Amino acid sequence: MASFSFVDALGLIAGALTTVSFVPQVVKTLRTGHTRDISLVMWLLFCTGVALWTIYGVLIAAWPIVLTNVPTLGLAGTILVVKLSNRGKE
Amino acid sequence: MASFSFVDALGLIAGALTTVSFVPQVVKTLRTGHTRDISLVMWLLFCTGVALWTIYGVLIAAWPIVLTNVPTLGLAGTILVVKLSNRGKE
Repeated sequence: MASFSFVDALGLIAGALTTVSFVPQVVKTLRTGHTRDISLVMWLLFCTGVALWTIYGVLIAAWPIVLTNVPTLGLAGTILVVKLSNRGKE
Repeated sequence: MASFSFVDALGLIAGALTTVSFVPQVVKTLRTGHTRDISLVMWLLFCTGVALWTIYGVLIAAWPIVLTNVPTLGLAGTILVVKLSNRGKE
């Protein structure tokens, strides 16, 4: 059984917050379809960075980093896809 | 002198990307002043989470986490402040 410390819990809470934070943005973006105030460059760089964070978390065996960055990538990727699909329309 | 590994470098690149990603969003937000397509709840949760990531990074002595989350908090906090100042106007 894996050990579980206060520090792990803190990392998990931190990751839960930064991951869950994208849910209202995804809901808003999918509902309105509007992404004019959202920066394309931000979401391109952010998704790339989150993918690298995941690899980093695996390499240092910090599982809160891995567990939270994988769903973040899915959520942020959704926003990026909507933004990309709006190119030339906004 | 602190040791520096490939893994540290990867974490630093990951962090640099996720941190720098907020710069174009801050520029866009400050230039236009428009935050209608941006979710208030996202940025509230995100800023709280980034603050906790910083503490987590200190506790596990993963300095790439600390070094990259501190400026992220400043950038994301700027977007949050503009969004909050636009409440009731958009």
